[in-house]
Amino acid sequence: MQTIGTQSIQFEHAPYILSSASVVGKKEGEGPLGEKFDMICADDKFGENTWEEAESTLQKESTALVLGKAGLKPQDIRYIFAGDLLGQTIATSFGLMDYNIPLFGLYGACSTAGESMALGAMCVAGGYADKVITVTSSHFASAEKQFRYPLEYANQRPESSTWTVTGSGAYILGTDKTKVKITGITPGRIVDYGVRDSMNMGAAMAPAACDTIFHHLNDFGTKPQDYDKIITGDLGLVGQEILIKLLKDKGYDISSVHTDCGIEIFDKETQGTDSGGSGCGCSAVTLSAHFLPRVESGEWKKILFVPTGALLSTVSFNEGQNVPGIAHAVVIEHEE
Amino acid sequence: MQTIGTQSIQFEHAPYILSSASVVGKKEGEGPLGEKFDMICADDKFGENTWEEAESTLQKESTALVLGKAGLKPQDIRYIFAGDLLGQTIATSFGLMDYNIPLFGLYGACSTAGESMALGAMCVAGGYADKVITVTSSHFASAEKQFRYPLEYANQRPESSTWTVTGSGAYILGTDKTKVKITGITPGRIVDYGVRDSMNMGAAMAPAACDTIFHHLNDFGTKPQDYDKIITGDLGLVGQEILIKLLKDKGYDISSVHTDCGIEIFDKETQGTDSGGSGCGCSAVTLSAHFLPRVESGEWKKILFVPTGALLSTVSFNEGQNVPGIAHAVVIEHEE
Repeated sequence: MQTIGTQSIQFEHAPYILSSASVVGKKEGEGPLGEKFDMICADDKFGENTWEEAESTLQKESTALVLGKAGLKPQDIRYIFAGDLLGQTIATSFGLMDYNIPLFGLYGACSTAGESMALGAMCVAGGYADKVITVTSSHFASAEKQFRYPLEYANQRPESSTWTVTGSGAYILGTDKTKVKITGITPGRIVDYGVRDSMNMGAAMAPAACDTIFHHLNDFGTKPQDYDKIITGDLGLVGQEILIKLLKDKGYDISSVHTDCGIEIFDKETQGTDSGGSGCGCSAVTLSAHFLPRVESGEWKKILFVPTGALLSTVSFNEGQNVPGIAHAVVIEHEE
Repeated sequence: MQTIGTQSIQFEHAPYILSSASVVGKKEGEGPLGEKFDMICADDKFGENTWEEAESTLQKESTALVLGKAGLKPQDIRYIFAGDLLGQTIATSFGLMDYNIPLFGLYGACSTAGESMALGAMCVAGGYADKVITVTSSHFASAEKQFRYPLEYANQRPESSTWTVTGSGAYILGTDKTKVKITGITPGRIVDYGVRDSMNMGAAMAPAACDTIFHHLNDFGTKPQDYDKIITGDLGLVGQEILIKLLKDKGYDISSVHTDCGIEIFDKETQGTDSGGSGCGCSAVTLSAHFLPRVESGEWKKILFVPTGALLSTVSFNEGQNVPGIAHAVVIEHEE
């Protein structure tokens, strides 16, 4: 058994991250992390006719890049674990089809970046594959069209709202030794704090992030200071404040080590992104471009990556349901 | 390594099916398998206000039942692997939330019944959990509302169309010995044969079923006759004919051992269900109620369960995309 505590897994044979890749849109390229991304596309339609096809192209490109960076071909990969935010995860289906690799389709809202890495790591560590790809995406325009208002409507946005990142991050996990490995995971539970405001995702997801981080620290018997960073997915500024308070109430102070991909990826002052970035592309590209290089170099020894998701659909929301959250945690460590 | 062939897994420590449960709607209860289901609800709204809440209740009930049949409590279960057909899989989120069990949300259209069992089996066999639940659902009314026409519209249906099953099937997989075990899996790839008719799902999914079964037989070095039954999910009568022909062209004749959950669950003549049943509830409840008892009793030694999914959304379909398919295969064997 590789189980630890109430809901975590500690891998006996920790899988390595062989390579990672990030592809983003124009706005993300103009943000503070701009020069760190592998590919920035000036045309947010990526040469396609629809926003959904554009998001499919994002996944296709990030997967091509992650293969290229590792010097691998599609036939070297045994399985793909992938997902996106669109209904019936069609960005994934149409984006990855041509690779001809067996696919596990996932949906965990913006937590899917963590869910896919968790399942991919379980697959490799379990001896089920030499190499797998995990990939997720989001696209500002396809998400706005689906969840909020058509862009042409030009509605105003409250300050608590987040800005869906146009981007896709891909990872190859495998048994070949590198300097970055996934040593454990804490899959999350659905937590419902009764939030009903779809324009305040941070508040909806913070309790789930709190629950997963709390159980993670308990399961592994670690303290926040044992991590160089604890990185949530897309809580934004509003959600960050709530998370830090909720965890303080439970006896853990993460304020000195916490950051959030949604806060890092945009410059709120100059980019008008309100509370921060969001989407399962947000955490996937930010980890790859901004955080992972520091673990690889050894500047950081250990980080906790905790993508967060808000579980709603336009139907559930219009039918008056709450917006519950979920978060999955992945431990990433440096190895000499 | 527990890998076999190009894309399959053969478990060294095969997980057992500890219990299973099926909950269905009124029409399914009136069909040929009616008396075999654990629970038939006379009210297809299951006492709820909306079709989506009704589908959530289906998952809640099947999960409660599968726990009860095994004499277990929610806290005995380490993880849930679950999904449904609705946008953002909301039937799952709202149905399973109250169990407070870490959740891996999945989307593989109607193949999710196979995908969830495959991942659940990998999890238990990998030493990551003692017991997991896998659960999927579909609901005729929530699916029609989302993918086709509101019921009030009373549109006519072509004969190739399938009838979405109102039902949810749940399984507990674990390390405790029983008479039924999962010995291997063959995760499937996306296969696109250029089908553009959303009213002919069988034709869209048959090529994917063919691809997965073909690779399964090659990977394990088995013949169709090595299985007491090869059971696809929801190809229906139209898809069955195509599948048998496609596999014959590739050198395998499965005609004597093939059946399909969508064909078994309804009586086409008296129930007006055209090509047959569909939905990820269809294969989940039919396996539990109709096929698994025969493996448990030893009447059948080995079956191949191959749920099939059509990868479309209303958006992809209206934007003129094809309807590709995917199928995941699970080997279920009797043990004395």
